[in-house]
Amino acid sequence: MAVQTVASTSTPTVDLGPAAALSCRECGHRVPLGPVFACEECFGPLEIAYDFSAYDAEELRKRIEAGPSNIWRYAPLLPVPADVAGKPNLNPGWTKLVKADNLARELGVTGGLYVKDDSGNPTHSFKDRVVAQALEAARAFGFTTLSCSSTGNLAGAVGAAAARAGFRSCVFIPHDLEQGKVVMAAVYGGELVGIEGNYDDVNRFCSELIGDPAGEGWGFVNVNLRPYYAEGSKTLAYEICEQLGWQLPDQIVVPIASGSQLTKIDKGLQELIKLGLVEDKPYKIFGAQAEGCSPVSVAFKGGHDVVRPQKPDTIAKSLAIGNPADGPYVLDIARRTGGAVEDVTDAQIVDAIKLLARTEGIFAETAGGVTVGVTRKLIENGLLDPALTTVVLNTGDGLKTLDAVAGTGLTATIRPNLESFREAGLV
Amino acid sequence: MAVQTVASTSTPTVDLGPAAALSCRECGHRVPLGPVFACEECFGPLEIAYDFSAYDAEELRKRIEAGPSNIWRYAPLLPVPADVAGKPNLNPGWTKLVKADNLARELGVTGGLYVKDDSGNPTHSFKDRVVAQALEAARAFGFTTLSCSSTGNLAGAVGAAAARAGFRSCVFIPHDLEQGKVVMAAVYGGELVGIEGNYDDVNRFCSELIGDPAGEGWGFVNVNLRPYYAEGSKTLAYEICEQLGWQLPDQIVVPIASGSQLTKIDKGLQELIKLGLVEDKPYKIFGAQAEGCSPVSVAFKGGHDVVRPQKPDTIAKSLAIGNPADGPYVLDIARRTGGAVEDVTDAQIVDAIKLLARTEGIFAETAGGVTVGVTRKLIENGLLDPALTTVVLNTGDGLKTLDAVAGTGLTATIRPNLESFREAGLV
Repeated sequence: MAVQTVASTSTPTVDLGPAAALSCRECGHRVPLGPVFACEECFGPLEIAYDFSAYDAEELRKRIEAGPSNIWRYAPLLPVPADVAGKPNLNPGWTKLVKADNLARELGVTGGLYVKDDSGNPTHSFKDRVVAQALEAARAFGFTTLSCSSTGNLAGAVGAAAARAGFRSCVFIPHDLEQGKVVMAAVYGGELVGIEGNYDDVNRFCSELIGDPAGEGWGFVNVNLRPYYAEGSKTLAYEICEQLGWQLPDQIVVPIASGSQLTKIDKGLQELIKLGLVEDKPYKIFGAQAEGCSPVSVAFKGGHDVVRPQKPDTIAKSLAIGNPADGPYVLDIARRTGGAVEDVTDAQIVDAIKLLARTEGIFAETAGGVTVGVTRKLIENGLLDPALTTVVLNTGDGLKTLDAVAGTGLTATIRPNLESFREAGLV
Repeated sequence: MAVQTVASTSTPTVDLGPAAALSCRECGHRVPLGPVFACEECFGPLEIAYDFSAYDAEELRKRIEAGPSNIWRYAPLLPVPADVAGKPNLNPGWTKLVKADNLARELGVTGGLYVKDDSGNPTHSFKDRVVAQALEAARAFGFTTLSCSSTGNLAGAVGAAAARAGFRSCVFIPHDLEQGKVVMAAVYGGELVGIEGNYDDVNRFCSELIGDPAGEGWGFVNVNLRPYYAEGSKTLAYEICEQLGWQLPDQIVVPIASGSQLTKIDKGLQELIKLGLVEDKPYKIFGAQAEGCSPVSVAFKGGHDVVRPQKPDTIAKSLAIGNPADGPYVLDIARRTGGAVEDVTDAQIVDAIKLLARTEGIFAETAGGVTVGVTRKLIENGLLDPALTTVVLNTGDGLKTLDAVAGTGLTATIRPNLESFREAGLV
């Protein structure tokens, strides 16, 4: 495996496996691996450039299959050192790809329907995948504090990963967040700082902190470590293909928050094709949003290349990013692959959560309601072909968004005797 | 594989793999496989008798290792048909055995400390393991409704498993259960019946229903399917040994509710020894209870063989069985293996939940606080040897018992600027 190491005054020599450099997505300008996220030439987003030239497809496939039951089986394709599996981290991934035959019947899918259920991750959301990458980058750059701004899943993922790895963590949240969400983040024992202000204020403060000497040694997983962090979403693509027997799915439905996950899933699929791990064939990527935060869906349907920001108002809070950074790239991918971007109402989200639970025994968070609901809508409007193999992502856990289905309750109340039981018509 | 099939008027011919008959734990009386749980001779508990005579150790080990990443890799050792992995169910198990080096340092364990983290199961508790067995028995006996009484984890596990497998489910709970717990059970869309009365009333009603024609075709997972259901806990023993490289641990700390889990873990370890899958060596099994429901611990410390029932009063509600059916067997096993039974206060449970979260990034439910807290206490009082390999079970998820750590919160509140950040002493 070719490894390029980089030395500078600000970063020690780093070994991040096949990661060779950072490359600007807009202008292609390359810089050495480091804790930077914007191109110094054009301010475009930096992403990881790899050197995969030494890989042989058959050898690589065997190496992956002999690897651990977590994302580190794909270490040769990620910006992590080769011995990553031996380091202390949460070892997320290798979650179930559930053949959803009951749901398929309800939706009329005949070509095979699968739910990639990321509620099986250690803190029960896909965020464990991306935080695990950021953690390795933080380790490589000599950082000692892992940080983020968050209102939900990310806070728990960072707190838990830092605890396991022996990092200090410092998570910033709006000071008036619901008590339940505060507890889920606070239990890991790191610093949990309430900011007097809204989520935008929290983010502005974090950007200020990164530019200040006070923030030295701090890795903000989705800011100065973002290029590494984002790569974690590629593992969803790898796992789906391997779990399908090293085959590309025909169609895949992905939730959109910043849009990063969708773009990295596409990147992961493209890598598998180029490396010869799957046979090349057309696939379609569909993006799913809540109507109350649907900037990319609106742009897609309007035929625009530019995404106009929205003020989010939806129960799908883990997707509520009104100005998604990767929105334009999502539009590109949906159009290039023949997919689409669609949105559903909050009521449709709740219906879809219940549908998935009732048919497959999977209790999804609101984001999972968005993807299942959008899948149903895409079939109804003819954009998704029910005769093709389709994978729908569930990226989080219903236990974290219980309020969304709070109306669900008892189907009957009886006295403790058979007469009352018979009267209720339960036999 | 030797399979004994049984035909009678009440049960169709069943194929439950290596399960050969039901055998009374007290008097050894054998009866054919069927939906019965008490010995007709002496009213003792029935359990599964297997025919493992055809197995070769090396062949079996290879077969297991080539199996799926769930409990069905052990299908040759469970009361399930050989093709079970292809049937619709939640496929629980193969959860992480976490090397808990940070926790080990805090507790002074030098011989290797592991947490078997069953929060990674589909509905985030070990109950998925036992329900999966009951489901296969229900299928074999031609039942169409899966049922249970529950106030927590079991309700969700039954609802979800029934949904996936296409069974009707009917779960009975006290009518005044907290709304959050009702939602977690109701979301799967089965019948969820509130009984006007307490949990004892619910159980009494279920026993009545089993004996009535109205209950025909109903499988109560932990009543008439109990012999099959209980075997699911053996998979914890199998997984721990396989994950340790086919070795027995020296010490294992198991929570006690009915006591069934502990007895089946011992049964699983004994089977692995007899089958030649692990080398025989002494191991100690420790039982863990909450002080507010400690009938087995009290009996152990008092040197009694009889377990005197208690009225539970503890935050560890998933362990709150005041009259544990398998209590005497637990006492036998703890004494025979050189283990012990210990209990901890509610405050110690909360401390232990936080300790596990802070050191390993694992957010356990109260039952996990009980086992970690008891482990600490057993080391302090010299009953557990810190120089030996020790496995501690976490059987559930902290998201389901958020109230226990509700006091956890923000470590600081600041205004969104660096000055306020510095004043808070966070650098």
